[in-house]
Amino acid sequence: MNHSSAEARAETIEPLRYLSKGEAAAIETELLRDYRFGQQQLIEIWGQACALAITKAFPLSSLAKKQPTVLVICGPDQNGSIGLVCARHLRMYEYEPTIYHPQRSSQSLHQDFTVQCEKMDIPSLSYLPTEVQLINDAYNLVIDAMLGPDADCANIKEPYPGILVTLKQVKIPIASVDVPSGWDVEEPSQDGINPEVLISLTAPKKCAISFSGKHFLAGRFLPYDIQKKYELNLPDYPGTDCLIEL
Amino acid sequence: MNHSSAEARAETIEPLRYLSKGEAAAIETELLRDYRFGQQQLIEIWGQACALAITKAFPLSSLAKKQPTVLVICGPDQNGSIGLVCARHLRMYEYEPTIYHPQRSSQSLHQDFTVQCEKMDIPSLSYLPTEVQLINDAYNLVIDAMLGPDADCANIKEPYPGILVTLKQVKIPIASVDVPSGWDVEEPSQDGINPEVLISLTAPKKCAISFSGKHFLAGRFLPYDIQKKYELNLPDYPGTDCLIEL
Repeated sequence: MNHSSAEARAETIEPLRYLSKGEAAAIETELLRDYRFGQQQLIEIWGQACALAITKAFPLSSLAKKQPTVLVICGPDQNGSIGLVCARHLRMYEYEPTIYHPQRSSQSLHQDFTVQCEKMDIPSLSYLPTEVQLINDAYNLVIDAMLGPDADCANIKEPYPGILVTLKQVKIPIASVDVPSGWDVEEPSQDGINPEVLISLTAPKKCAISFSGKHFLAGRFLPYDIQKKYELNLPDYPGTDCLIEL
Repeated sequence: MNHSSAEARAETIEPLRYLSKGEAAAIETELLRDYRFGQQQLIEIWGQACALAITKAFPLSSLAKKQPTVLVICGPDQNGSIGLVCARHLRMYEYEPTIYHPQRSSQSLHQDFTVQCEKMDIPSLSYLPTEVQLINDAYNLVIDAMLGPDADCANIKEPYPGILVTLKQVKIPIASVDVPSGWDVEEPSQDGINPEVLISLTAPKKCAISFSGKHFLAGRFLPYDIQKKYELNLPDYPGTDCLIEL
């Protein structure tokens, strides 16, 4: 049992907190600036946690297709970097990830994570088939690491609206990283994509309050003082697990 | 089962390779330069793996003392940074680490990892008691993250020789990170410290060939091409574990 968070919860007995867009951004800024975490370090921690969530939600033995294929769609920013790290770890866990990465970032960190995947011989699609059946047939699931909490969902630029149209039609499960692409951070989208699995990073966002799929939370690394300051009321993580199913 | 490494082993049927100092350095250079891993990222991966090894070798329920105290001695360079990350993760796993960090590095990465520990309220000793009984009484074990494979063991400067004298006398177990401090990378020390646990990073070094204690290997993240190039013949890691007991 986690002493500090258990104490905090005993004092408050409050339910898990769901973050606004501003709170999520403030926590990340504080982690980087005051707690001196590195972006590279956080992305590695989050990406590995996402891969572990996939092994729990979709164990190798449960996959419908003969090959343990996974399509990982990576956006140009931090959410996409997390997807790249997730793909690398999935490869080590014996999955066969394929990356679709429509816009490469000019950010050196993002490029480094891309090279790490290339050097692990993880294939990359140059375009996404518009024929949805091809995606349904080729992969067991899609990981949506496109837009994340920083995106302005009212103003998504190509190629992402087109990809979302495709994802709304796929029949294989979608697992979204932190915030499903196209959703507002604070509200689920009524006509958007419909992920079966959501992996919340650090703490869940308001859009996940009524999420009815499998919901994982990956945020064990979070310093206790931040947990208290933002009254996150995080659950106790079992054993040495870096994530928990809510 | 890990397809690629299993194939590599089936072809060669060679035993696990133990690295020379030069090979260990070459692999690290290649990871950073060609595979574009970041130092921060590698240190996070290694430090977390060390903490997991400690949970396996010394589970909370097995500790002799009432408090799950651990003394983590951190050197000024990379091995020390790994110790800092290990301490941070141990804190999250409900251990009570205390850091002894005699020389702070001027390197910004090392300072960042130090701040992360301070912000997790991990206490730090300003000096190491010379009265060994005080160490035996206060801690369940010592983690030796002092010198690592880059140190010139024939030319260790103060305060480290004095700390090694103390560590040779402690009765509680020592767990060493990568290369026991004071040992040559390629040869165990006859009159040096005598760790009960060794956590080899990436691949074991030559000094570990006849190591008789509990020996863990943490190197699952290693790209398959590097494993092949250096003929590492790494074992298959079970499930999603990032380390294996040899």
